[in-house]
Amino acid sequence: MYINAISHYLPSTLVHNDYYTQLKGLTDEWIFQRSGIRRRTRAADDENTNTMAIEAIIPLVGSLPYDVTDVDLIVGATYTPYDTVGTLAHTVQGHFKIHSATAVTVTSACSSFINAVEIVEGYFATGKAKRALVIASEHNYMYTNEDCDQSAHLWGDGAGCAFISSEQCSVDDIEIIDVHTTGLGHIGKGVSGVHLRPSNGGLTMPYGRDIFVNACKFMAVEAKDIVEKNHYMLGDVNYLVPHQANSRIMDHVAKVLGVEQSRVISNIEDTGNTGCASTLICLSQNWRKFTKDDLILVTVFGGGYSSGAMLLKK
Amino acid sequence: MYINAISHYLPSTLVHNDYYTQLKGLTDEWIFQRSGIRRRTRAADDENTNTMAIEAIIPLVGSLPYDVTDVDLIVGATYTPYDTVGTLAHTVQGHFKIHSATAVTVTSACSSFINAVEIVEGYFATGKAKRALVIASEHNYMYTNEDCDQSAHLWGDGAGCAFISSEQCSVDDIEIIDVHTTGLGHIGKGVSGVHLRPSNGGLTMPYGRDIFVNACKFMAVEAKDIVEKNHYMLGDVNYLVPHQANSRIMDHVAKVLGVEQSRVISNIEDTGNTGCASTLICLSQNWRKFTKDDLILVTVFGGGYSSGAMLLKK
Repeated sequence: MYINAISHYLPSTLVHNDYYTQLKGLTDEWIFQRSGIRRRTRAADDENTNTMAIEAIIPLVGSLPYDVTDVDLIVGATYTPYDTVGTLAHTVQGHFKIHSATAVTVTSACSSFINAVEIVEGYFATGKAKRALVIASEHNYMYTNEDCDQSAHLWGDGAGCAFISSEQCSVDDIEIIDVHTTGLGHIGKGVSGVHLRPSNGGLTMPYGRDIFVNACKFMAVEAKDIVEKNHYMLGDVNYLVPHQANSRIMDHVAKVLGVEQSRVISNIEDTGNTGCASTLICLSQNWRKFTKDDLILVTVFGGGYSSGAMLLKK
Repeated sequence: MYINAISHYLPSTLVHNDYYTQLKGLTDEWIFQRSGIRRRTRAADDENTNTMAIEAIIPLVGSLPYDVTDVDLIVGATYTPYDTVGTLAHTVQGHFKIHSATAVTVTSACSSFINAVEIVEGYFATGKAKRALVIASEHNYMYTNEDCDQSAHLWGDGAGCAFISSEQCSVDDIEIIDVHTTGLGHIGKGVSGVHLRPSNGGLTMPYGRDIFVNACKFMAVEAKDIVEKNHYMLGDVNYLVPHQANSRIMDHVAKVLGVEQSRVISNIEDTGNTGCASTLICLSQNWRKFTKDDLILVTVFGGGYSSGAMLLKK
């Protein structure tokens, strides 16, 4: 599988830590030390999960190695849906008039983007699709419960998209060497660790510590496994792109893996936790930095719980 | 692919049409003539999408040809999520302690169950899974907007589950000969036809007529295509299991396909539209009726829009 093109969209409004100083008495330094966040992106009143996805895709239309309407599979990834019937994938299909594609939207919380890529792998394996569009989009603010002291200040909004083909389209493609996900609903606090219950309290994090511990553990396990399975060593990794939940988790994972800080890609300081879109946005923001033979390792952890990893080679 | 076991759960509370006579002046005959519905199932206050899924699975534990913990892929299907982070699939994983499985929950509205089966097909094709658990569960009432005159009286609650293996496990298995889905977000009113916007009006149906017309068309197209692609004729079909949205749609599809009424399986009179769980519940309710060599055709249409079909052989 090959990523042919990638892009992202971040809302222009930034909410700085002083908002939470005024709202909840949390200081800038307190938030930054515990999360690495200085500010977070926030969708405007007329934006939502679906509009942000469309904005992420628009810059790529016209520069793809095929017409956007030649896409035959659209997989949306979000745990913050605007509409669970007219889903993220269907909205994109309608907007860009992609007339011959399967469309489905998935959630595995903050792992959803990697799950979406693994689902694409399956469609490619059956031969039912050859050109996929994966969109990860999160409108955390729509569901954020400001009463949750553990998490209200963590969330950002944004979207990313990746066009993925079964065969190489250009020398600029980045190969997806492997992708893997693991369901962890049976581990630790599992489905109780973090909630997004649309009709019952929104997005809250009752067990932040349990998430922290398990994210540290399983992001490292997924990363190590996918590298070794593909006969590389962790020292071969040029860039580590961890899920942007918390800088302390990222630091811990990098340390366990022996990846030095200069090779860790992060945007959490300026965006907050943009959910399952976070690693896709990081990849997009750094796409031009990657040079031939670079090995890029993505590793994620999601509430619920789930983990996943993806190994890319330029 | 083979369905090894199937089950369902319907809440015990039935809401009869006279509830909507009192609420909105809709008579029993008016509702029945337009939808085929006399009563609909309604989850109790302490039930939700996830608890109903667990209830659907419990009767099968102990009688499967393998231990429930040997499942290596769990795909949840719902457009009425209780929790989009601790998802349907993750809740099932946690409850039954399924320790080595991928877990993801998908929505393509009322087509979601068929999309879930197609995703299983992909995991089987890559060799990443061999034993899958698909759960379709809908708690429509949680999101029903009683102000929507077009749709408030249509919805029921319920769940179904199917254990699916890549290889045959027993002579009682039913083979999935083929499965197919189509995204139709670009057709007709598309994502505007029916909404479930958790933070903006819940479940409403602004364009019922557009849905009716496109459901009639695409359920027939999907059904005909999958039968012919697999070198059968519509006359070979022993049972037609259409999505249970509306008896008039089902009648129309059966007529276009030339399938006589006695071969059409329906439960809508007693359950209402149980969303993506509806065909799975119908299959479960009639599982013992199917005899050797029976050909069973499932065809669905979902808001957003989507269509899908599945061809089964006993």
